[in-house]
Amino acid sequence: MAVEPRLAASVVDTRASPHARLRTLPGRAVTIQDGFWARWQKLNRTVSLGHGLRMLESAGNIDNLRIAAGQQAGQFRGPVFMDSDVFKWLEAVALDLAREPNAEWQSIASPIIDLVAAAQQPDGYLNSYYQVAEPGRRWTDITHGHEMYCVGHLTQAAVAWQRATGDDRLLRVAVRAADHIESVFGPGKREATPGHPAIEMALVELYRATGELRYLRLAQTLVDRRGRGLLTGGRYPSAYYQDRVPVREASTVEGHAVRSLYLASGVTDIFLETGEQALVAALERQWQDMVGGKLYVTGGLGSRYSGESFGQPFELPNEVAYCETCAAMASVMWNWRMLLASGQARFADEIERALFNGFLSGIALAGDRFFYVNPLLSQGREEVLGRAAPQRLEWWRVACCPPNVMRTLASLGHYLASLDERGLQIHQYASAQLDAAGIRVSMASDYPWSGTVSLTIEETPSDPWQLALRIPAWAPAATVRVNGKAGAVSATPGSYAQLERAWRGGDRVDLELDMRPRLLGAHPWIESSRGCLAIQRGPLVYCLEQVDHAPHQLMDLELDSQSPLGATWTPDLLDGVMTVTARGRGISTSMWNRRLYRPVDELSPASSTPVTLTAIPYYAWANRAPGAMRVWIPATSTDVF
Amino acid sequence: MAVEPRLAASVVDTRASPHARLRTLPGRAVTIQDGFWARWQKLNRTVSLGHGLRMLESAGNIDNLRIAAGQQAGQFRGPVFMDSDVFKWLEAVALDLAREPNAEWQSIASPIIDLVAAAQQPDGYLNSYYQVAEPGRRWTDITHGHEMYCVGHLTQAAVAWQRATGDDRLLRVAVRAADHIESVFGPGKREATPGHPAIEMALVELYRATGELRYLRLAQTLVDRRGRGLLTGGRYPSAYYQDRVPVREASTVEGHAVRSLYLASGVTDIFLETGEQALVAALERQWQDMVGGKLYVTGGLGSRYSGESFGQPFELPNEVAYCETCAAMASVMWNWRMLLASGQARFADEIERALFNGFLSGIALAGDRFFYVNPLLSQGREEVLGRAAPQRLEWWRVACCPPNVMRTLASLGHYLASLDERGLQIHQYASAQLDAAGIRVSMASDYPWSGTVSLTIEETPSDPWQLALRIPAWAPAATVRVNGKAGAVSATPGSYAQLERAWRGGDRVDLELDMRPRLLGAHPWIESSRGCLAIQRGPLVYCLEQVDHAPHQLMDLELDSQSPLGATWTPDLLDGVMTVTARGRGISTSMWNRRLYRPVDELSPASSTPVTLTAIPYYAWANRAPGAMRVWIPATSTDVF
Repeated sequence: MAVEPRLAASVVDTRASPHARLRTLPGRAVTIQDGFWARWQKLNRTVSLGHGLRMLESAGNIDNLRIAAGQQAGQFRGPVFMDSDVFKWLEAVALDLAREPNAEWQSIASPIIDLVAAAQQPDGYLNSYYQVAEPGRRWTDITHGHEMYCVGHLTQAAVAWQRATGDDRLLRVAVRAADHIESVFGPGKREATPGHPAIEMALVELYRATGELRYLRLAQTLVDRRGRGLLTGGRYPSAYYQDRVPVREASTVEGHAVRSLYLASGVTDIFLETGEQALVAALERQWQDMVGGKLYVTGGLGSRYSGESFGQPFELPNEVAYCETCAAMASVMWNWRMLLASGQARFADEIERALFNGFLSGIALAGDRFFYVNPLLSQGREEVLGRAAPQRLEWWRVACCPPNVMRTLASLGHYLASLDERGLQIHQYASAQLDAAGIRVSMASDYPWSGTVSLTIEETPSDPWQLALRIPAWAPAATVRVNGKAGAVSATPGSYAQLERAWRGGDRVDLELDMRPRLLGAHPWIESSRGCLAIQRGPLVYCLEQVDHAPHQLMDLELDSQSPLGATWTPDLLDGVMTVTARGRGISTSMWNRRLYRPVDELSPASSTPVTLTAIPYYAWANRAPGAMRVWIPATSTDVF
Repeated sequence: MAVEPRLAASVVDTRASPHARLRTLPGRAVTIQDGFWARWQKLNRTVSLGHGLRMLESAGNIDNLRIAAGQQAGQFRGPVFMDSDVFKWLEAVALDLAREPNAEWQSIASPIIDLVAAAQQPDGYLNSYYQVAEPGRRWTDITHGHEMYCVGHLTQAAVAWQRATGDDRLLRVAVRAADHIESVFGPGKREATPGHPAIEMALVELYRATGELRYLRLAQTLVDRRGRGLLTGGRYPSAYYQDRVPVREASTVEGHAVRSLYLASGVTDIFLETGEQALVAALERQWQDMVGGKLYVTGGLGSRYSGESFGQPFELPNEVAYCETCAAMASVMWNWRMLLASGQARFADEIERALFNGFLSGIALAGDRFFYVNPLLSQGREEVLGRAAPQRLEWWRVACCPPNVMRTLASLGHYLASLDERGLQIHQYASAQLDAAGIRVSMASDYPWSGTVSLTIEETPSDPWQLALRIPAWAPAATVRVNGKAGAVSATPGSYAQLERAWRGGDRVDLELDMRPRLLGAHPWIESSRGCLAIQRGPLVYCLEQVDHAPHQLMDLELDSQSPLGATWTPDLLDGVMTVTARGRGISTSMWNRRLYRPVDELSPASSTPVTLTAIPYYAWANRAPGAMRVWIPATSTDVF
């Protein structure tokens, strides 16, 4: 198919990327119309964006820029990367305008763009922390200063704003900031690379948006400098900053999870433009390391509080899981780029896993509370050290997650489909309109509650083309019918069903994914999930919450591993969810008598009472009474006593 | 029995403490003569102490003091608490001299005492970091500065040195330092309390050594100031510093584990002198919280890397367990004081658990390598972030553990026995001579390899007195014979067998503890040990190491929960250990095919081959080829697939 004219584009625009297997659609080619994600996008616009702006005002992020711009007196507030939250919020507004224009939001955001421009220094430098709190000290702490990180987010916001509105004020700010960075750190200049990646993918996108090859070269230069010991003075080992080995030698995801995945996203972007095989080979090794040893069933990533980092392979504790909301989003970013590079369904599967579980748990159903960490087990106790408290807060001192959630929700449509020379690929399912390359498709589904997806070809070129539908790896079975007829195409879970024909307006395709709930086991090397099972239905991972199981203590419940599972639509619960029921039992732990360890020969079988377990989607936990929660449920047949 | 005259005394001297249920023995009243602990004490003197001095020289600890004393030029090296490692090492030498005089070691340590004295400022202030690196800034960062912490260790070393040698040079330094602190922070003075406890127990001991009530009052004052928000500017929540609640309201052990347990030790010391019931009530609540939810089976304490802290109850991950060696030693310190306060066997049980397992794992069999963290599971992988690398190092940048191990090994004899008005209590078993209050007892045992302990009364007052023998809670059964006759006394595990009679020289008592290996289960709320069993024999917790199980992969091994267990003395292994064998099997994990999660209905039973498992004592792991290790072993009957 022909490349689209350069119009409002997605967060990643691979339409002209020579090494992209798939091409992204223009920004308004996809509209999510109703159903599950439409509700979240509406909530994002009506609640989250406004809440975010109030928080940015009260936390000082916007005041910091006003002070930097000389519009206000005062002291810098917050951590060094405060600007980035403003930029992520601006990007969220831009992506939301790209999704659906709105004069009011455009006029709210517009003066903030002017403020950002006013804060920029004549030479293009922009960072309110260094300008206000440490004047004269810019570029003195590349390891922790987050200056390039902030410009990365500025650039992503600027590209999104220009693509959504045609207004290039912020893009000009970003270009001047990038030019400044190039003048200091460009090829042949000062040899440094930032402690927190983010600017790499932003620079590649700036190259895509402007056609200026210098930005791609700058991204490459920053990437090439890693693993050579240039990041000095760090409080953490070099792996934390992805500086242990050169990127082409990397074989693991390691260190700070968000940094690691942001860098991988940027490196994938560079591959999409340059086609350098050593890069994609390293990325593939890292991806296998991630999904083969460091991935939670929720799509959460980063096992450790210490360094907010990946653990060793199979080190996946449930209760003290870090699983920063930003890491789940970073995984979506990286997997999307890997999908665009390869066209392989496994990357779309991981996007789906993250979106419906470890990402979405990061925001409350009300849209104005956010998790920073997303554990898979909570005992519902008061947390003494503070950080792991399983509660969503209205904002965080380190507030990277909330505006990241907002921009991700606003951009969901971008991940639904792509084009290649054979036709159209549908990666994610929702009720949506798709309109690109002369193809108009209407998709209707109550996904993820229902596995039925109906597609109607409303407009089509007359030549044959291929409609590819992802059959999720989680599906036990799937069928595809074209105009009511099944069997003409293979629908293997973990791949794309490929329907090639000369389509006609009114043609209909029905996809039926088997949504029966299933029990999952975990690899035996994962110690925290041993003897446990998890419940999954469709793309949704489930959990048990204390509030549904009184008078039993959640920690005392076991799941009958032979239990049939029932699914019930429960409209009044948690804004409407499919609950899953299972047979279980409540165990008495009284024989332990306040002792943690006992000889087996002193223990007798525990007394138990039958219980019906009611599981809810993981993303919806902690929206009712505070209390315990668990994803991995001890299974009855694992009893040793 | 009469209080002994004030002579060389133990690390804690409760002989005149009005609220001590038990009285400590003088320093040389106990001599460990041969067997298990004698080997370690000899190694400590012949290898560890000399190694420690070399490390203190090369790391800069001693140079720092030389610079502070004006004897040398240079810059301060290392973290702010470098002095404390010198003091702990001096205390280790002192305790070793108390155990067995040695002119060479006394002459090696003596000039270092002069150096410490020379470094002290005229007003009594002593801290080489502030004197050298931040002159004029003393007492400006009470939360992180560790100045009182260092004086605490100075004081403990000074008391030990004076008690061991009669030389009071160091004690005079400590007295001047304590007086200086009193002049700044004493009752009615500047309201502050240190971020890292340690000085509290030291001040009580200084009171015991000098009779100066002011030091007890100062300790009380520092303790009373906690929980009132005085520790400001902290990088961590107040719980980290034990400043969340007043000590009398505490009901949990929380925050930094070593700080928490050092404080608890000091508070117990204050109770021993004052008898304040609110203190002991809080300590009892905290102890129950610890053993009921936060204690590893090895006696390790502190679940989290984050803040080196206790986790929530039942949060006891095996692989990422922190279990700092210092925390196991702090547990010995606290439990010893609680034992002295109460006379209850449960505290001596916990001392034994810690000493033989989570403490002793902290030092290599060669005596010159040390663990900082002591995990219960290692997959033997290269550790990317560095901190958890399961290897003993010759020294650590934060080197609190190695000299702490040295002073603990040197002082082991102090924990063996005590006196009360009824007679003599034996808390720990070893081949040793006891000589106190007119009683001379010879104890012979191959403990912990053998459960046979033979005691001979060699000298005795003519009046009747009670010999109390701890029957460890781990023992499935025990018998006590007096002069060959059994049955006259109850020997219930977890209590003391009390033998009261008019003893005669030559009387013999034979204790027989059932040492058959047993399988332990863990409380079902501990997620990391679910479906697993541990092996214990006597006081020793066992583990499996990769090196004993080739060609099987350790992570693939399972233990037959019905297996008989065999114990075999293996003299050539690990300096001689009793190994324990069990029936197990090796499982193939190939069906997981690099996937972490799979639907149960897609899995078939794993193929397996029978394996004989060979377990070694946990303390001895990581002394051969590097590789995987596990304490908690998956048990066959827990299979769900």
